[in-house]
Amino acid sequence: MNRVYNFSAGPACLPLEVLKEAAEEMCDYRGSGMSVMEMSHRSSIFQDIIDEAEADLRKLVKIPDNYKVLFLQGGASQQFAAVPMNLMKNGVADYIVTGQWAKKAAKEATKYGKVKVLASSENKVFSYIPDCSSLDIDGDADYVYICENNTIYGTKYHTLPDTKGKDLVADVSSCFLSEPTDINKYGLVFAGAQKNVGPAGVVIAVIRDDLIRDDLPEYVPTMLKYKTHADAGSLYNTPPCYGIYICGKVFKHLIKEGGLEAMKEKNEHKAGILYDFLDESKMFSNPVERGSRSLMNVTFVTGNEELDKEFVKAAAARGLVNLKGHRTVGGMRASIYNAMPLEGVESLIAFMKEFEKEHR
Amino acid sequence: MNRVYNFSAGPACLPLEVLKEAAEEMCDYRGSGMSVMEMSHRSSIFQDIIDEAEADLRKLVKIPDNYKVLFLQGGASQQFAAVPMNLMKNGVADYIVTGQWAKKAAKEATKYGKVKVLASSENKVFSYIPDCSSLDIDGDADYVYICENNTIYGTKYHTLPDTKGKDLVADVSSCFLSEPTDINKYGLVFAGAQKNVGPAGVVIAVIRDDLIRDDLPEYVPTMLKYKTHADAGSLYNTPPCYGIYICGKVFKHLIKEGGLEAMKEKNEHKAGILYDFLDESKMFSNPVERGSRSLMNVTFVTGNEELDKEFVKAAAARGLVNLKGHRTVGGMRASIYNAMPLEGVESLIAFMKEFEKEHR
Repeated sequence: MNRVYNFSAGPACLPLEVLKEAAEEMCDYRGSGMSVMEMSHRSSIFQDIIDEAEADLRKLVKIPDNYKVLFLQGGASQQFAAVPMNLMKNGVADYIVTGQWAKKAAKEATKYGKVKVLASSENKVFSYIPDCSSLDIDGDADYVYICENNTIYGTKYHTLPDTKGKDLVADVSSCFLSEPTDINKYGLVFAGAQKNVGPAGVVIAVIRDDLIRDDLPEYVPTMLKYKTHADAGSLYNTPPCYGIYICGKVFKHLIKEGGLEAMKEKNEHKAGILYDFLDESKMFSNPVERGSRSLMNVTFVTGNEELDKEFVKAAAARGLVNLKGHRTVGGMRASIYNAMPLEGVESLIAFMKEFEKEHR
Repeated sequence: MNRVYNFSAGPACLPLEVLKEAAEEMCDYRGSGMSVMEMSHRSSIFQDIIDEAEADLRKLVKIPDNYKVLFLQGGASQQFAAVPMNLMKNGVADYIVTGQWAKKAAKEATKYGKVKVLASSENKVFSYIPDCSSLDIDGDADYVYICENNTIYGTKYHTLPDTKGKDLVADVSSCFLSEPTDINKYGLVFAGAQKNVGPAGVVIAVIRDDLIRDDLPEYVPTMLKYKTHADAGSLYNTPPCYGIYICGKVFKHLIKEGGLEAMKEKNEHKAGILYDFLDESKMFSNPVERGSRSLMNVTFVTGNEELDKEFVKAAAARGLVNLKGHRTVGGMRASIYNAMPLEGVESLIAFMKEFEKEHR
């Protein structure tokens, strides 16, 4: 087995321990005589798997009792419609646009009501998080929406917006479980699992009870109502069972590793040494405003497109893969989620130093 | 490793060969140094996986060039909304109700237009497929909808309805790939993978090009438009990558086993010996009208609820598991999809004979 350091933005690296366990259990899950992929979602054995996953997630994030945990499908993109469909009561919502995903979410929401963009960082290619301490929030707004970590640009909210009492909805796809979160500050958070949690095809939503409503417009599909899934314990129809099982293993792994406090410390250290290097380098630089830097996605450029390409290629040849930046912004990006070991980041820095020396 | 014979209706048994390969490739897919779960969906290596899966499926089912293959999420239940949202042009659709799933689909469609139930078998607990040779099809109907194999009741259309030129839409979740299908007879077929194809969390839709439209009502979520996924080759957002990879392995396995003609022969033989036994038995009987019997889901009862329970329990102790009928109908059900070996059905029959003798 030849494992690489995989800096993909998502789907992304998973703990090797989790993958090994999954491989061992593939044909016969704990003496059941079948794979988790083959199990009825109505069986007690699968019920145990999903119950344990939820319980471990609740423990890990300290999710309050008045919030439901939902295992959904369709990616964050489907939530872009589900959020306004379910949460727009007055038909008004406020969005803060800090990247492509927040922009897409805002656009999708215009189908269902009046959307106000409270703030945007598009003027500087989304390289910063706008000041959100004094926003002109609509009095009728049903919620304020953010994308908390911006995978493409490598930015992150270090302070949540002052929503003036309105419910905060956050797409946390690329930062969920990377550090402790106070769920009480949100009405709803959701995350596509494929970045920091598990395989693609699972979305985890954590929603406060009172936001789960049934009096929705007729056109809202049954499958897009949070109530449908909340009432059924995420088993209204067949859920993405295998993905949930893998997420559950990741939760257990994180608990064993010391929980989210320990993750935060590790992640700050990993990102810290990489940003320190970038700040000192004469060849590589990070295009993000210092106070907005992501812990999970570190973007960097040489300032020369050809050199960027050469770097990505040479790094891959050394087993440092998927360092190419998002197609819309170019450059490089190192996604250093929980499962990226410190050694991966150290190897990357060592290689960058070497590359810089060779190309001086 | 101790494998059981798993008669689950879905998620259901998969070919052991497929699971073994997946286990071997879990931590390092073909020298890539990563799991398929960890791969960027924008990488060439994953593009090859999805392209190969589609090409193999097209070969297997002989899908004509003017049909698109889509890998979607959300289960058949989400298609219950997507179908009328995308296909209702006149706002009218005709449904044939042969079970719980068709009934749910018809109900969901009423949100989006006028729905006429052309025929129903609810009067006899869905134990037969109605005569569909001379239906009173609405002149304005945008499509005629069926659920081709009814998993809960063990029925199947042996002749497709005469739709009088209207497009036929079929939920083929529990019979897809069980025998050759002439796709030209349908406008759209869709299947939740978790019955006869792969793991839960993948839906495969095959849709004729001209039914993929963009002029849909404003409220249709981007993620529920077939056009979104058709235009992006099922990569508009992150698809359920690992599930697609497993489906691809199943397609290759079926091609190797002789394709759908060979599957049909095997499936007819497996179902044949089981129905023959049920017809001869003095204890067990199949409640379905003979001309409507499913090849995939064989339902049976003893006529005594306590005895049914005892049978299910005793069978499980012998490694014949998940034989309990659907909670809404009771009794027993043996789902004998492609991946159920003949030996599994033979073992079941042998055990039923033994049980019958003991309880005479």
